[in-house]
Amino acid sequence: MSAPPSAPRSNLPSKPRLVMKFGGTSVADMDRIRSAAARVRREVDAGYEVAVIVSAMAGETNRLVAHVREASETPGSNSPGFFDAREYDSVVASGEQVTSGLLAITLQEMGVPARSWAGWQVPVRTSAAHGAARIEEIDTAKLDERFAMGMHAVIAGFQGVSAEGRITTLGRGGSDTTAVAFAAALGAERCDIYTDVDGVYTTDPRIERRARKLERISFEEMLELASLGAKVLQTRSVELAMNYGVKLMVRSSFSDDPGTLVCPEEEIVEKNVVSGIAAERGQAKVTLLKVADRPGVAASIFGSLADGGVNVDMIVQNISEEGHTDMTFSCAEDDVQRARSLLENAKDAIGYREIVVDEDVAKVSVVGVGMRSHSGVAKTMFGALAADGVNIKVITTSEIKVSVLIDRKYMELAVQSLHSAFGLDKG
Amino acid sequence: MSAPPSAPRSNLPSKPRLVMKFGGTSVADMDRIRSAAARVRREVDAGYEVAVIVSAMAGETNRLVAHVREASETPGSNSPGFFDAREYDSVVASGEQVTSGLLAITLQEMGVPARSWAGWQVPVRTSAAHGAARIEEIDTAKLDERFAMGMHAVIAGFQGVSAEGRITTLGRGGSDTTAVAFAAALGAERCDIYTDVDGVYTTDPRIERRARKLERISFEEMLELASLGAKVLQTRSVELAMNYGVKLMVRSSFSDDPGTLVCPEEEIVEKNVVSGIAAERGQAKVTLLKVADRPGVAASIFGSLADGGVNVDMIVQNISEEGHTDMTFSCAEDDVQRARSLLENAKDAIGYREIVVDEDVAKVSVVGVGMRSHSGVAKTMFGALAADGVNIKVITTSEIKVSVLIDRKYMELAVQSLHSAFGLDKG
Repeated sequence: MSAPPSAPRSNLPSKPRLVMKFGGTSVADMDRIRSAAARVRREVDAGYEVAVIVSAMAGETNRLVAHVREASETPGSNSPGFFDAREYDSVVASGEQVTSGLLAITLQEMGVPARSWAGWQVPVRTSAAHGAARIEEIDTAKLDERFAMGMHAVIAGFQGVSAEGRITTLGRGGSDTTAVAFAAALGAERCDIYTDVDGVYTTDPRIERRARKLERISFEEMLELASLGAKVLQTRSVELAMNYGVKLMVRSSFSDDPGTLVCPEEEIVEKNVVSGIAAERGQAKVTLLKVADRPGVAASIFGSLADGGVNVDMIVQNISEEGHTDMTFSCAEDDVQRARSLLENAKDAIGYREIVVDEDVAKVSVVGVGMRSHSGVAKTMFGALAADGVNIKVITTSEIKVSVLIDRKYMELAVQSLHSAFGLDKG
Repeated sequence: MSAPPSAPRSNLPSKPRLVMKFGGTSVADMDRIRSAAARVRREVDAGYEVAVIVSAMAGETNRLVAHVREASETPGSNSPGFFDAREYDSVVASGEQVTSGLLAITLQEMGVPARSWAGWQVPVRTSAAHGAARIEEIDTAKLDERFAMGMHAVIAGFQGVSAEGRITTLGRGGSDTTAVAFAAALGAERCDIYTDVDGVYTTDPRIERRARKLERISFEEMLELASLGAKVLQTRSVELAMNYGVKLMVRSSFSDDPGTLVCPEEEIVEKNVVSGIAAERGQAKVTLLKVADRPGVAASIFGSLADGGVNVDMIVQNISEEGHTDMTFSCAEDDVQRARSLLENAKDAIGYREIVVDEDVAKVSVVGVGMRSHSGVAKTMFGALAADGVNIKVITTSEIKVSVLIDRKYMELAVQSLHSAFGLDKG
C-alpha cells in the first residue's frame, strides 16, 4: 500500500478522533446533507474531534463526466473520446468541493465549528496517475492546528494534489480510500462509512431474504467479499484499513441501526466457519482446447490477455493427455469478446485447436476465516450444490474462500442453498 | 487600484500575447464551448500566446448560490440566511473550475496545446475579503514557463486564493476583472471580452433602434457608461484597464463582427462631443422639505444614509430661504424604503418637516470626452428635452457627463430625442 499515515503525533490528542464518510446518496440534496450534519453533531457532542469525508452529491459526478466526454468528442478531433486526465480530474473533483462547502455551512448553522478542505488545501499528496492516483502522504499539520482550536473538518473525498500542483482524483469509490487514509493519518478511533445499506450481510438480501447483518467481520473476509462483488466498500480502502489497523464501521445514513464493524480477526470472538456468501453474475468461462502442453504456454496465453487488458480471474488446467491439455479461465463477461480476439490473434504463437466460450456462468463463493481450521467446508459446499443438481464448472480456493463457477440460472438457488447449509440464516 | 501587474518580464516574449474572456452565455453548453475554442484557435493560428479567462457555464453560479442559501437556512439555526463567505467562495468558484477544464479539453481536441488553471494554481493572490476579494498579485512565472513551451492557458475567472490558502471570489462580474488583471500582468497586446452583445452602442438598441455600435470609446467614457448601467463591462475592470493601459475589446461570441475597442482617449482620432446616452430606470427621488440650513446638516443626512448602506447618487440643495432649505437626492428604487426609515429615525437629529418620495423617476445621461471643450452640451440637452415637454427634476454634471432625473414615462422619449439631438444616429 502506498498511503503511509503521517508521522505519529508527538502530543497525544486531548480528544478522541473520528472519521465519518458520507457517500453520494447520503449527501444527495440539502435534506440529506442536513441529516448528515445532524449525525456529525451527535459525534461532536459525544466528545470527538471529527473529520468528515464527503463524496459529490449523487448524480453530480456523472453529470461532470458526461461534460468531459462531450468535450472530448469534439468533431474533427484526431483522437475522439480521448481526454487529458488532468483536466478530467480538475472538472470532476469540483463535485466534492461543492459538497464539502455546503456541509461546512450546514454544520456552522447547527452550531458546530467546521470548515471545508479541498484535497490540495490539506494537502493530500498523491501520485500523478490522474484518474487513479494513489495517496502518498496526508499532511495533517493544518488539520491538527484547527482541531486544537475546536474546529472540525469537512474534507472533499476522492481527490488530492500531485507534486506538480495539479488536482488528482483517486478513481471511482476513492472517497472510501480517502476516509481510511485520513483515519490512519489522524489516529482516529474509528472510520464510519455512511452509505445506503446498513451493514455487511451474510449474503445479498435481494437473493436470500434470510440474509443477516453481521455485527463484525474481519478485514480478510471483507477484502474477499469486496473483491467478489459485494459492493459495500471499495477493495483498496479495506486493504488500507487492514494495513494500518483502522477500524471501519459500515452503517446506514438512513437509519440509526448499528452497522457492521470491519476489524482485525482477533477482535472477533465467535468466529464463523463461513461468514458470507458472495455471488457475481457477469462472468464468462473460456476454454482453449488441445493446447500443446509445453513450458511457457500458460505464460503466452495469459501474457497476451494481460497485455490486452483482460482481467483473468479463475484458471484451471486439465491433466495433460498425449502432450495436450485444455486450459480454462474465467473473466468478466464484458471482456470476453476482447479475450477471444486476443487469443485468436495469438493462435499460432500459443498453439491450440479451438476456443470454447461459455458466457452464461456465475461465480458463487463462500468466505470465512474459520475455514482455515475446518477442512469440511469444501465438502459441505459441494454436497449442498450437488443435492440441488447444480453442476460445478470450475473451482478455486484460497485460505479463506472457496469459489465455484456454475450455470448462471442456478446462481440464486446456489446462494440460498449454501446460506442454509452453512447455518448463516440461524445467526 | 489594488491589482499591480507582476514585475515586467526581463525577456521580451517571442510572441505577442492576447487575453480572451468568455462570459457565462459564451460557454453555456458544449456547443458554445466549442465555438469559443474555435475562436481561441484562430488567435493561436494568428501567432498569439493566448490566455483564456472563463466564467461558469450560464446558470451554474445561480445553481450553486441557491445550494448555499438553502444550506444557510437550516431549520433551528441561530442565524438563518447567514453563511460563511469562505465556504460560499469555495462552493461557487467550482463553476469556473469546471468550465476551464472543459475548454482545455476541447482546445486539445482541436490540436491547441492548452491546460486549465484554477485561481490558486496560477496563483492569483487576493485579499481575504471573501465574496468581494481584490486581486493583489498575479504571479505569472508558471504561465510564462508554459507559454515558452507552446502551451496556452485556460484560467478560471472570478477567483483567487487568500494568504491563508482559502479560495476567494471577486464577486459577480469578477471574470472581467480577472481578464484585465491578467492582460496587465502578462503584458498582453489586448484583452478581448466576448459576451452576448457585439460591442458598446451609442445607446440601448432596445430603446433607440438607430443606436450605432461604436468602433472606439475612451476608458473615461466607458467608465461613466458602465457605472450608468450600460451592463457591458464591470466598472472595476474598466478602472483597472485604464490604470494599466490595457486595451479592451468588447465583442460578440455569437458573430464575427468587429467589436468596440475601449482605449485611451489619445487613440481616438475623431472625438464625438457626445459618445453615448445612458438610461437607468430603477431610480427614486427623495426630498427633505424645510431642512434647517445650518452647518453639519448635510453630513447628518448623508451620514445616516451611508451608515445604513444606502448608495446616494445625485444630490441637490435648493437656495436657502428664511433659514430653511430643501434637500433632494436620488438613489436606487430598491433602497428607497430603507432610506425613508433611516431618515425618519434620524428626524430629530437632522431637523426637517417632511419627506417626499418620488419613486417614478429615471436617470438619463449624455457622456462624451468631447464635452470638455464644448460648452453647448447642456444647452442642447435641455433644449431637446424641453422641446419634447420633458420636465427635468434634478441635474448633475461631471467633466464628461450630464445627467438628469426625469419622470420615468419619458425615459424612452428622452433617450431617442437626445440620440438624435447629438447626431448619434448619423455616425
